[in-house]
Amino acid sequence: MQLGLVGLGKMGFNMRERLRRGGHEVIGYDPRPEVTDVPTLAALAAALDAPRVVWVMVPSGPITRETITALAEELGEGDLVIDGGNSRYTEDAPHAELLGAKGIGFIDAGVSGGVWGLDEGYGLMVGGADADIARVMPIFDALRPPGPREDGFVHAGPVGAGHYAKMVHNGIEYGLMMAYAEGYELLAAEELITDTQAVIQAWTNGTVVRSWLQQLLAKALKEDPKFVEISGYTEDSGEGRWTVEEAIAHRVPMPVIAASLFARFASRQEDSPAMKAVSALRNQFGGHAVKRISESG
Amino acid sequence: MQLGLVGLGKMGFNMRERLRRGGHEVIGYDPRPEVTDVPTLAALAAALDAPRVVWVMVPSGPITRETITALAEELGEGDLVIDGGNSRYTEDAPHAELLGAKGIGFIDAGVSGGVWGLDEGYGLMVGGADADIARVMPIFDALRPPGPREDGFVHAGPVGAGHYAKMVHNGIEYGLMMAYAEGYELLAAEELITDTQAVIQAWTNGTVVRSWLQQLLAKALKEDPKFVEISGYTEDSGEGRWTVEEAIAHRVPMPVIAASLFARFASRQEDSPAMKAVSALRNQFGGHAVKRISESG
Amino acid sequence: MQLGLVGLGKMGFNMRERLRRGGHEVIGYDPRPEVTDVPTLAALAAALDAPRVVWVMVPSGPITRETITALAEELGEGDLVIDGGNSRYTEDAPHAELLGAKGIGFIDAGVSGGVWGLDEGYGLMVGGADADIARVMPIFDALRPPGPREDGFVHAGPVGAGHYAKMVHNGIEYGLMMAYAEGYELLAAEELITDTQAVIQAWTNGTVVRSWLQQLLAKALKEDPKFVEISGYTEDSGEGRWTVEEAIAHRVPMPVIAASLFARFASRQEDSPAMKAVSALRNQFGGHAVKRISESG
Amino acid sequence: MQLGLVGLGKMGFNMRERLRRGGHEVIGYDPRPEVTDVPTLAALAAALDAPRVVWVMVPSGPITRETITALAEELGEGDLVIDGGNSRYTEDAPHAELLGAKGIGFIDAGVSGGVWGLDEGYGLMVGGADADIARVMPIFDALRPPGPREDGFVHAGPVGAGHYAKMVHNGIEYGLMMAYAEGYELLAAEELITDTQAVIQAWTNGTVVRSWLQQLLAKALKEDPKFVEISGYTEDSGEGRWTVEEAIAHRVPMPVIAASLFARFASRQEDSPAMKAVSALRNQFGGHAVKRISESG
Repeated sequence: MQLGLVGLGKMGFNMRERLRRGGHEVIGYDPRPEVTDVPTLAALAAALDAPRVVWVMVPSGPITRETITALAEELGEGDLVIDGGNSRYTEDAPHAELLGAKGIGFIDAGVSGGVWGLDEGYGLMVGGADADIARVMPIFDALRPPGPREDGFVHAGPVGAGHYAKMVHNGIEYGLMMAYAEGYELLAAEELITDTQAVIQAWTNGTVVRSWLQQLLAKALKEDPKFVEISGYTEDSGEGRWTVEEAIAHRVPMPVIAASLFARFASRQEDSPAMKAVSALRNQFGGHAVKRISESG
Repeated sequence: MQLGLVGLGKMGFNMRERLRRGGHEVIGYDPRPEVTDVPTLAALAAALDAPRVVWVMVPSGPITRETITALAEELGEGDLVIDGGNSRYTEDAPHAELLGAKGIGFIDAGVSGGVWGLDEGYGLMVGGADADIARVMPIFDALRPPGPREDGFVHAGPVGAGHYAKMVHNGIEYGLMMAYAEGYELLAAEELITDTQAVIQAWTNGTVVRSWLQQLLAKALKEDPKFVEISGYTEDSGEGRWTVEEAIAHRVPMPVIAASLFARFASRQEDSPAMKAVSALRNQFGGHAVKRISESG
Repeated sequence: MQLGLVGLGKMGFNMRERLRRGGHEVIGYDPRPEVTDVPTLAALAAALDAPRVVWVMVPSGPITRETITALAEELGEGDLVIDGGNSRYTEDAPHAELLGAKGIGFIDAGVSGGVWGLDEGYGLMVGGADADIARVMPIFDALRPPGPREDGFVHAGPVGAGHYAKMVHNGIEYGLMMAYAEGYELLAAEELITDTQAVIQAWTNGTVVRSWLQQLLAKALKEDPKFVEISGYTEDSGEGRWTVEEAIAHRVPMPVIAASLFARFASRQEDSPAMKAVSALRNQFGGHAVKRISESG
Repeated sequence: MQLGLVGLGKMGFNMRERLRRGGHEVIGYDPRPEVTDVPTLAALAAALDAPRVVWVMVPSGPITRETITALAEELGEGDLVIDGGNSRYTEDAPHAELLGAKGIGFIDAGVSGGVWGLDEGYGLMVGGADADIARVMPIFDALRPPGPREDGFVHAGPVGAGHYAKMVHNGIEYGLMMAYAEGYELLAAEELITDTQAVIQAWTNGTVVRSWLQQLLAKALKEDPKFVEISGYTEDSGEGRWTVEEAIAHRVPMPVIAASLFARFASRQEDSPAMKAVSALRNQFGGHAVKRISESG
């Protein structure tokens, strides 16, 4: 089928390619002339046959909001917009309402798989009305990995449910990565272990901890066995924070995912204000030496 | 090749079967007459051709220690013992020494895979001398999953390294399970999500969080979608505790795995003494009502 | 000076008494006839000499909002409202704006001290304009404990700063209580310790951990040495949740206060859905027995 | 009464002074000539009237062990040794046995108060036999703060109980400091708060979080309001690690104290190996940029 695709960055660019491989007609729009198929959003709308389906794949937050607002102008009755970015699920209802006022449908889609999705397919979690989702199913089927549909795609609930499921997915991802990372650090610290990479590699088949992330960790260690070239400075893109906020809102204890999030915050601090306070306290009561900044190299 | 196997419980029973399927001759000993091949440990030693190889697959702690002590009596120069149970790695050097005094070799082997190992193969992490390991390699190759050897087997280092690697493996396992569990609880608490099982099932292909544990969680939810029949009471078998203790010994921050361990401890308390103290404190300073035990149903 | 006081519950009732002991004229309003001085809010406004000062001491959330909205009707140009409840600081700017539109000033005041404040004085953290705060200083001085003003009172910043400081105060309080509680639980679990209460009592003078909470814990244990009559079920009143949310917004790692909050959430669950998932997983891969609900007593 | 005191460092030096102020005769031994009263341990033993009491106040671990072993040689039947250092409680029974073989009694004493103890008195937690403790009570009474004995002294149980109580005391101390430190960091990050020091100072009287540590934090901030001169690098001296290990041994959930300990470990890492692994993983699956070490300043 035919699809308009707004945003041809790391994710959107590959998705266009995968959809074309799947036999679909994709007209992509991106402000960068070297990747776009049409010069403007208006040109995109004009190039599509009504009723039109437009997939938005741009950074979450203001850019998504502006794009959907602009699409509400360009599209009309019977058209459909899919937000496939990492929007916070609370954005979805307002977007659906904005579009709905013009008779335009809305689906929120969480998309997982990163740079590997082009060849392996993307895991999809979507929210919206049954009829809207049925209409786009050929696109979802082309994007998702081969195999049973239910293993790579879920209609998670009404509008918002797709992004909610993706948010939780990413929160879990934080925890999984940190669990492997802690184990890696301990293995690397223990003299008995002669080859940390080989141990993690050997978990690929048969073990309880085997996973895609485990294989990627083995691969990363093969490329740089002690991570000498990689800093621990780690960004976060919102979903981890939102997951913990949702846990608080639902009174769900979430020690593991929260600890993983806090470790990212800490990784971006040159020095910890909290630990400065602890160090100052130890000095106050015990006369314990503090490391003075002025003494550091 | 020929192998003696002591301990035919949940793990050992299946391993005997997998090894026999692989064309090896296995003579098993277990105190339970209905599963054993020979009546006594002495009979096992007598039935094996020298130089003998005996795999010990019994509960860690005193039973392993007694078994190895008994084998030191039954076996002799040139024989080899493998401890495949979940022994703490600190037990390995003493066992190697005890056996070494009689000229008996020792390998420690961490074995992962649970009840699935029979058909899928077991992930193996072993510690010991090169020559000893080379000698048993046909057994390891029959136990491990098919595919490249390095994806399901590792010679992790000298005696102790196999159990160390397995300990860390299990510590990571605690963290992974808790990350999924927290995400599951949040999904189940959110009204937007119409089918928690379907969401987790849909992570099987293409997503970043796909893993064997994720598939097992989807499977478990299929059998009991709200876990109405399962209590949260969760045992721990030592490796998680040891992993955190090793982290402390190595000054490795380990918030995620420690939190997962503490959640298990808490799951086994009828009421939390610590939270009783918090509740009592709130009552003291704020006059906040406490829930009196005598008021409970 | 003269003060109107709305809300004569556990906190407001005692504050009226302390202010009267301090020589101030307090006219209190509360819907409960047995404690109120005037029959209605309108009667309160009428009974006060202009320019009027009214302290609001009611539950945070909708009731505070309604009370302030009603006061905006009853009061006028040059009057002043103080919100002394545990409102979220984000409520303060809207309240200030609502009142400011009528020429009414606004101060937000965090009040700590609980039931002990009547005799010992209340710790006060306030936000607002210098002139407004100067005007009410006699009231603050009467409410706060004796001693240097800066040890029991702070003008923390503009509108919102008082409640922000109080929120952080309460977040810290969660962490402090949990630290004592964990230590208590360990002492109580250790056979060497013959009298847990006596140990905690002995920390009152000279030790690094001496504090008011420590004394209250010793007192609580004196009344019920094993907390047999107290359930671990522990409510939270918002500030802990808000503190962790602010930490996330500011990218501040907050493992201790977050863990304390999650422990409260967990204390209110009959069984943990997350631990059910962990237990189910262990059963799936290891054939580990799960505790079936149907087997429980 | 008369007391021998071995170890005249930061703690022992002040304790000698406080005991002398209290009218006791103290003969101190320390290898440093500028502080010692006698040239050797043998000279100390010779200078004391039998039955002798010797207080050991040296670093825990090997130095304590050597000192007690040496004292077992120098002292005899009816004498008494007190270990007042921060020994792990598991050291106490062996020390008691070693000394007991010579008829020498043993008391373990946890001493809190740091550099402030000289003037304010030391909090004391002791373990041992009733008769031994009764004999040294005048010393304990001189060291402890004035006021009721039970507020600054406890006979916590048999040998080992004193150090156990002190260990838990210090574990709690870790948690308390971290709770204040997290709150401090959040206050300092929030623009509404104009003076973080003033807020923390204002908690001194009347609030729920008032404590000695809170006062020290206010004092430290007065000296260096943004801790510009203090590094977050924070040592730990054993008790925190041992407390978490004891929690594990007793299956006591201890999220807050463990998190405080892990934060200290992290404070001493130039970069986090675990976070390098997380960063490498994000790069692997998402093509997320990693901060390359070679790009850093």
